[in-house]
Amino acid sequence: MKKSIFYHAGCPVCLSAEQDIIELIGQSNVEIVHLGEEKTKIDEAVKAGIKSVPALVTPNGNVLHINFGASIADVKG
Amino acid sequence: MKKSIFYHAGCPVCLSAEQDIIELIGQSNVEIVHLGEEKTKIDEAVKAGIKSVPALVTPNGNVLHINFGASIADVKG
Repeated sequence: MKKSIFYHAGCPVCLSAEQDIIELIGQSNVEIVHLGEEKTKIDEAVKAGIKSVPALVTPNGNVLHINFGASIADVKG
Repeated sequence: MKKSIFYHAGCPVCLSAEQDIIELIGQSNVEIVHLGEEKTKIDEAVKAGIKSVPALVTPNGNVLHINFGASIADVKG
């Protein structure tokens, strides 16, 4: 299966959701991207349709925004 | 593994997220509850911490609110 990608920005809500996602779908099935540390990936995240973090992009390209940690605008700033 | 519970209310956002969740974690690992059809379960959902649907309650009791379909207040009404 193609990997999902979990985008976050290090916020408490993000880290909690990250643990939940890893437990649910398995660490080997998800790539974790910390947009606060990898700012070059913000454009990629926006193109994928991400409006807030934490969010999961599924293997078929759907975006699941989970709870609400921070908007992408806040992450860019 | 204890099952996760996916609560929804039949909205388009809910049904899309339902498909994504089933593909990610497997149909056998998730119980689906349609709060529009099973209104007796709304109290249970609120007690679990659900504020909007679609939402997933993980086996350890965490709530992941996914995208945003409808608030619980709307589902009750």
